[in-house]
Amino acid sequence: MNKTITIELSTNKKPKPKASELGFGKYYTDHMFIMDYDAATGWYNPRVVPYQPISLDPAAKVFHYGQTIFEGLKAYLTDDGKIRLFRPEQNMARLNRSNARLSIPAVDEELAIEALKQLILTDSDWIPSDAETSLYVRPFVIATEAQLGVNASTQYMFMIIMSPVGSYYAEGIHPVKIHVESHYVRAVRGGVGNAKTAGNYAASLKAQEEAYAHGASQVLWLDGVHRKYIEEVGSMNVFFNIDGTVVTPALNGSILDGITRDSIIRLLKHMNVPVEERQLSIDEVVTAHQEGRLVEAFGTGTAAVISPIGELTWEGTRYVINGGNTGELSQKLYDTLTGIQRGTVEDSFGWSVVVEPSEHLISR
Amino acid sequence: MNKTITIELSTNKKPKPKASELGFGKYYTDHMFIMDYDAATGWYNPRVVPYQPISLDPAAKVFHYGQTIFEGLKAYLTDDGKIRLFRPEQNMARLNRSNARLSIPAVDEELAIEALKQLILTDSDWIPSDAETSLYVRPFVIATEAQLGVNASTQYMFMIIMSPVGSYYAEGIHPVKIHVESHYVRAVRGGVGNAKTAGNYAASLKAQEEAYAHGASQVLWLDGVHRKYIEEVGSMNVFFNIDGTVVTPALNGSILDGITRDSIIRLLKHMNVPVEERQLSIDEVVTAHQEGRLVEAFGTGTAAVISPIGELTWEGTRYVINGGNTGELSQKLYDTLTGIQRGTVEDSFGWSVVVEPSEHLISR
Repeated sequence: MNKTITIELSTNKKPKPKASELGFGKYYTDHMFIMDYDAATGWYNPRVVPYQPISLDPAAKVFHYGQTIFEGLKAYLTDDGKIRLFRPEQNMARLNRSNARLSIPAVDEELAIEALKQLILTDSDWIPSDAETSLYVRPFVIATEAQLGVNASTQYMFMIIMSPVGSYYAEGIHPVKIHVESHYVRAVRGGVGNAKTAGNYAASLKAQEEAYAHGASQVLWLDGVHRKYIEEVGSMNVFFNIDGTVVTPALNGSILDGITRDSIIRLLKHMNVPVEERQLSIDEVVTAHQEGRLVEAFGTGTAAVISPIGELTWEGTRYVINGGNTGELSQKLYDTLTGIQRGTVEDSFGWSVVVEPSEHLISR
Repeated sequence: MNKTITIELSTNKKPKPKASELGFGKYYTDHMFIMDYDAATGWYNPRVVPYQPISLDPAAKVFHYGQTIFEGLKAYLTDDGKIRLFRPEQNMARLNRSNARLSIPAVDEELAIEALKQLILTDSDWIPSDAETSLYVRPFVIATEAQLGVNASTQYMFMIIMSPVGSYYAEGIHPVKIHVESHYVRAVRGGVGNAKTAGNYAASLKAQEEAYAHGASQVLWLDGVHRKYIEEVGSMNVFFNIDGTVVTPALNGSILDGITRDSIIRLLKHMNVPVEERQLSIDEVVTAHQEGRLVEAFGTGTAAVISPIGELTWEGTRYVINGGNTGELSQKLYDTLTGIQRGTVEDSFGWSVVVEPSEHLISR
């Protein structure tokens, strides 16, 4: 295919929101990236264009059969004036794993990363610089063929949109209350739980609402087969510090292969903290709590990075963890990982990628 | 809300395809129905407009989190010159059950049926009259709020589009080969399997492709917990005639509550054929086949009505059913149900609804 990314600049730039008003995913930058796919042509016409509505036939398969996947990552404007991404190649590799599960044709990962960089450079004045803020980047693919048969689309759009975001929590890092879900199930082995696809999130909305009604901010998901093994928390991976050993559910096909999850595991190993990826039941967690061995618990994800769990509610009983406070290890992991992301902590892993203009794929 | 449905007629009518070219879901009529929702206003502005692309923000939640549901039903132009629908109130009731599961606000079912009728009357010249043809009607709801937080949208569109369709199979009713799926899972209890939502169909695409590769045309889904109990076939409910007793999986939360399924159960009872809704394992079906007691098997759904299963393949073994031919009961059920739908068989159930202009909700 022609890998030349064309750039059409917006002539009508939007006002930028104040850092204090950012929230999450409310404002979008001046440009977006689009690339089309047709079965006969493959992926074609990669382009940066002004951010604008897209026009689709109401029979487009994405509306009916949910053939769509997405990714999420952040760009940081760091104190040295550089723009940094965190392990973007991992996002694009996972994007293609999700594509394969959803019968969507693979995208060229190198081109996708270049598209990401070009879009970020085009809208670099949108990257907020205040503490805890960043530019959230959302690549996604949607099936656009206007055909109602239940089968894979022959036409797709790959897009990237971007949103300046504040801290996931106003205080930066803040323990949350979690409702252990015993009725609803997010995903099951053999399903699409390990793909970053729309249906997993749609399936979570009802349980999330009920968690709110219980005064919790997220759901802890148990497995769909035995209803006892821990899977995820909200849309994050989850870790438990039991007596100094950090345990997280093993990737079993129904859990998302989180990039923050992987980074935390590597950081823990680097810090010589024992870490185990294995099956972990809610009973084991409750028993550890009752015996005073549950030191900390936290979720991991791109949006919040580390989200400490201050309290679990299961079958009507409240289990307060670490007095409802952020644990020592949670804080250390948060500081280290966000430090690497922002270039203030030495990156011995080669995770942080500086975005610099690379003209070989560009035409203006 | 204001229940007045406004109608804007198309000034640019499309050519109509030949009956022989119809296929399924390839052509769309000249008009569509739209109604909008905003949390502050509720559902508003119900309207029939020319069929046209819809314009959405690329951050619309439907693209990212799959918050969408749909329905499917058919309109028939019958020999007496009347337009008939089949149990449309059941579709709209299920639409709201799906809405509830996906945290989408309910629509007014009476208004939705009126919208359906107005749209059909507006495009009545699109209803094909050849044998086995009909007008397929697709109501659906999509989440349109441009906000990337994982929570229920505050804005939606309810739409109805229509497509003239041919017979699902060229021969009318035709036995198909089915691959019993032992790796992929469609849905699990506690999930969204009993809602007509996009994610269930997205989750089925990969298995469907592998079924094609095995020379089968559909997948027989087993349950996600034990991997042995029969759930659905493709996107249809499934029935087995074992020694004269017709057995279909009981509704357990992961199976779609099919309107054709319900109609077949009622028809069987009316015909004094023993029918059982219960848990049914693949082992029981295979044993029945080995003992010569598996008389017939068939799928049921709006698109094909009855789809006989001529052959099952499970764990490498082929099980030919009824010599690969359409069974006597399958044929009788097909003839009776399609006869009721088309007004040629007496409808003692009150299922067939004639579409007649009802002006009280219309303004032109």
